Amino acid sequence: MSSDSFRSGCPINLGLEVFGDRWTLLIIRDMMFAGKRHFREFLASDEAISSNILSDRLAMLVETGIVSRADDPSHRLKAIYSLTEKGIQLLPIIAQISHWSRRHMPVDPVLAATGEARDKAGPDAEERQMAALRAIHLGEAV
Amino acid sequence: MSSDSFRSGCPINLGLEVFGDRWTLLIIRDMMFAGKRHFREFLASDEAISSNILSDRLAMLVETGIVSRADDPSHRLKAIYSLTEKGIQLLPIIAQISHWSRRHMPVDPVLAATGEARDKAGPDAEERQMAALRAIHLGEAV
Repeated sequence: MSSDSFRSGCPINLGLEVFGDRWTLLIIRDMMFAGKRHFREFLASDEAISSNILSDRLAMLVETGIVSRADDPSHRLKAIYSLTEKGIQLLPIIAQISHWSRRHMPVDPVLAATGEARDKAGPDAEERQMAALRAIHLGEAV
Repeated sequence: MSSDSFRSGCPINLGLEVFGDRWTLLIIRDMMFAGKRHFREFLASDEAISSNILSDRLAMLVETGIVSRADDPSHRLKAIYSLTEKGIQLLPIIAQISHWSRRHMPVDPVLAATGEARDKAGPDAEERQMAALRAIHLGEAV
């Protein structure tokens, strides 16, 4: 990726050029918190992503190195998607979005409680969660 | 805002329903880090937002209570935009996007250095920056 293809070299802009839309971070959320790895699982989420948009976003996530795609040896469904290290490092952004929404938006109380429990788990909880994601997605020992 | 009008009550989704696009957080960035407060100043940023999109996003930000709009008594330009507390609390999200991009995207070296200096300023730097924004935008004593 040459920086010529971006609107600017500003780090905020470069992030938004990758995931600045209403869907991409929902796919990452599903991989991080719901253990989803297959196309049909992402389709089944509450926000009702269309299969066209999902195909488009998964291809972009693979192309930008945030997600990797492999044949699934143990499953009838064709492909299994994994987070890369670049994808796992999106966790603090997603955690901050969750934190902001719990203060300022009409979040579902059950989901809010999950987020609050995560906040209360202490300052190392995010690092532990990233280590767990590395174990699942990158096959690293915890 | 009734929660019926949202795709789901998930906090990640609710954040993306407000600022999940390629432009909104750039306007917030300009208010936080470049001191921009006027329509024409936002138009002049490197990413070249169009005046239609800018009008649309500023109206949305005012409607959702992230930005407030007032007549500017000291300026020929008509309106001055300020961050509300809800807007100031977007800072940690923007800081995490910056952090991720500096690791994973071709960020302009000059802008990267600014971000790194902010990281090195220590764990209280974000709180101090939010206090400074409250002083400027909400008129609170620092």
